[in-house]
Amino acid sequence: MVNLPLRISFQQTTKTAPYLCTMLSISNRGNRMPPSPIRKLVPYAEAAKKRGTKVYHLNIGQPDIETPQQILDAVRNSDFKVLEYSHSAGNESYRKKLTEYYSRAGINVSPNEIIVTTGGSEAILFGFMSCLDAGDEVIIPEPFYANYNGFAVEADIVVKPISSNIESGFALPPIEEFEKVITSKTKAIVICNPNNPTGYLYSREEMEILKKIIVKHSLYLFSDEAYREFCYEGVHFSAMHLTDVDEHVVLMDTISKRYSACGGRIGALVTKNKAVLQTVMKFAQARLSPPSFAQILAEAAVDLPANYFEKTKAEYKLRRDTIIKRLNDIPGVFCPNPGGAFYAIARLPIDDADMFCQWLLESFSYQNKTIMLAPASGFYGTSGLGKNEVRLAYVLNVDAINSAMDCLGKALEEYPGRTVET
Amino acid sequence: MVNLPLRISFQQTTKTAPYLCTMLSISNRGNRMPPSPIRKLVPYAEAAKKRGTKVYHLNIGQPDIETPQQILDAVRNSDFKVLEYSHSAGNESYRKKLTEYYSRAGINVSPNEIIVTTGGSEAILFGFMSCLDAGDEVIIPEPFYANYNGFAVEADIVVKPISSNIESGFALPPIEEFEKVITSKTKAIVICNPNNPTGYLYSREEMEILKKIIVKHSLYLFSDEAYREFCYEGVHFSAMHLTDVDEHVVLMDTISKRYSACGGRIGALVTKNKAVLQTVMKFAQARLSPPSFAQILAEAAVDLPANYFEKTKAEYKLRRDTIIKRLNDIPGVFCPNPGGAFYAIARLPIDDADMFCQWLLESFSYQNKTIMLAPASGFYGTSGLGKNEVRLAYVLNVDAINSAMDCLGKALEEYPGRTVET
Repeated sequence: MVNLPLRISFQQTTKTAPYLCTMLSISNRGNRMPPSPIRKLVPYAEAAKKRGTKVYHLNIGQPDIETPQQILDAVRNSDFKVLEYSHSAGNESYRKKLTEYYSRAGINVSPNEIIVTTGGSEAILFGFMSCLDAGDEVIIPEPFYANYNGFAVEADIVVKPISSNIESGFALPPIEEFEKVITSKTKAIVICNPNNPTGYLYSREEMEILKKIIVKHSLYLFSDEAYREFCYEGVHFSAMHLTDVDEHVVLMDTISKRYSACGGRIGALVTKNKAVLQTVMKFAQARLSPPSFAQILAEAAVDLPANYFEKTKAEYKLRRDTIIKRLNDIPGVFCPNPGGAFYAIARLPIDDADMFCQWLLESFSYQNKTIMLAPASGFYGTSGLGKNEVRLAYVLNVDAINSAMDCLGKALEEYPGRTVET
Repeated sequence: MVNLPLRISFQQTTKTAPYLCTMLSISNRGNRMPPSPIRKLVPYAEAAKKRGTKVYHLNIGQPDIETPQQILDAVRNSDFKVLEYSHSAGNESYRKKLTEYYSRAGINVSPNEIIVTTGGSEAILFGFMSCLDAGDEVIIPEPFYANYNGFAVEADIVVKPISSNIESGFALPPIEEFEKVITSKTKAIVICNPNNPTGYLYSREEMEILKKIIVKHSLYLFSDEAYREFCYEGVHFSAMHLTDVDEHVVLMDTISKRYSACGGRIGALVTKNKAVLQTVMKFAQARLSPPSFAQILAEAAVDLPANYFEKTKAEYKLRRDTIIKRLNDIPGVFCPNPGGAFYAIARLPIDDADMFCQWLLESFSYQNKTIMLAPASGFYGTSGLGKNEVRLAYVLNVDAINSAMDCLGKALEEYPGRTVET
């Protein structure tokens, strides 16, 4: 369904084959389901740690920033007696509070236009399932968040990637590229803004271009805005700020990165489209309710002092400035300056990022340290793209980033698969 | 897909129709997704409360039993600084601890044979998605937990109900009934043991019959054992106790009812089938992790004193004895004695349970009190069955149950749609 590297499908078939000798079989959907793009690197990271090598994890978006004490305390000081199901759409008190949060972001919604989900993941899945049928298509600028592939397989829909490229800093592909892949089966465009994995922040002009496309072709715009607060160049222009397209826009949101609360598993699907809300609500009722503890935390988070995001953003900006400078100072490395989120994609002077990332963990160390990176190929829908690119998550402090960049510089000098600088 | 009453599909189409005038449409899957069977009664319950009428909620499985203080305290006394993603399969410490819990239930599993899920709901969905493709069939004895229909729509699979009936106390239908509906597309049998909504507890003999069927026809046995501890007649015989069918059995579990912790959203999928585990793991990775707070609670729950379940079970047994006696004492009412869980299905001397349940909330009160029940039709896959049956959840204390039964007795005297006793 999704255009995955052949290698992955093949590995999977090989692994499950021994169990096919009984008639009990795994579904084709299950076989098609993509494994995590970094999963195959995990055993190498574990082995490196066992050898006593320190591994800097730049491969995942798990921030080291502390969850604000006062929102953890909201849970720790709670005094209910029964851990009950919440409303399937989330506690009403939380949804009311969320409207204040959205209002401050210039997004005017009512509590009934919000369905609280189990992480942003569930918002994406519910959106796909409610608006698309098997075989329907979504267009996603690539590279994109790899788990969109998984949710597409779950919903049995087809991802049509259109390529953004590192030379343009991963800007929105031109309108013609969208129109080339639009068919009668195209139902939606998915964007992540600011973007994971590129860090690209879409401009107002780009958002207006998307508006033209969704109106002309009657498409939904699914907008994943998990990193809304983390914009370092310019301001965030939400899909919900677009006028006259209320029926088209479905916001997928999460508190995971915003408050360093990934384990809470609280997200939201927000839209003014009543038919979508009614439909998503049926999916929400089937799974009964989102987690209760973390709804308390999320509700308290709306009352964090106004300077909370300023401080967090300043910290991430410092890390971004550090990592981008350090990357571009390494001979043969190119990394565009990301406008937001906490990711960057860098092009390295290497033959194959999958092999390089494995080599870093298996065969390299510098001062008994190494780094774990995510090969960018896992974020492209088109096979063969991103082969010499990696994604770096700047979720570590500046000292750790500097040490990690020392490692990367040394590694690129030593790596046997280094390519000639271009 | 699922054999739902025509009325439901029709209502849904009517409701979404105004939004179809744009080309933006809801998916057929979304339209097929069944609403909660009690959803249409909720506005009537709210109106009754606004009029000042007390409503006894026997309609949902939300226990009033307090969540054990010491497991709530495990969360409240936690001192981590970052609310991180857990492992996609759940914290290793929790999975290790869970093996102790299962061992006490006579189920020998290793931590790697457990994948912690977001509620039992997600375990069911992941099981369906991993083992069945679009159009594949599962056999489920009806009446069954209504949300199986929802997960079947999400996975695009077909539920083939086979009827158990109130006269036999909802015992497992005979083997011939299974074989009548088995086709080349049949991949699994789903049971809930003890059963929601009937309270039926499957005997060892019945489980051995299921074993014969799954071996002969190479089927998975998905066993939902949410109510394992609440057995009042005989002992629980788990699907995991069956010998020589390790590859066939997939256990779907949850802490929701066990510890009165429904809002935690912690469940588990447990199996010894490695191909299923590997596949479910990919679905688990796509949604990143189950909720972190409630994993702390769930881990602490394994250390509850041995008499915790004795006390809880004694309380539920008292409620069951009370409600079953009171029900059968009402002229024209028949309710078999359920062996487990905290539900019962009763046959009432009425024309239509949907109308009766609405009438109870809209037009009836006794001493300014009324009751909310779940019409049983929503739990049958075959249209037309269960029309004069209701499901009662005995999740209220004995005094409340007695008052509720007073109401029901009076209501059945007054209800205009009362039928002649048979």
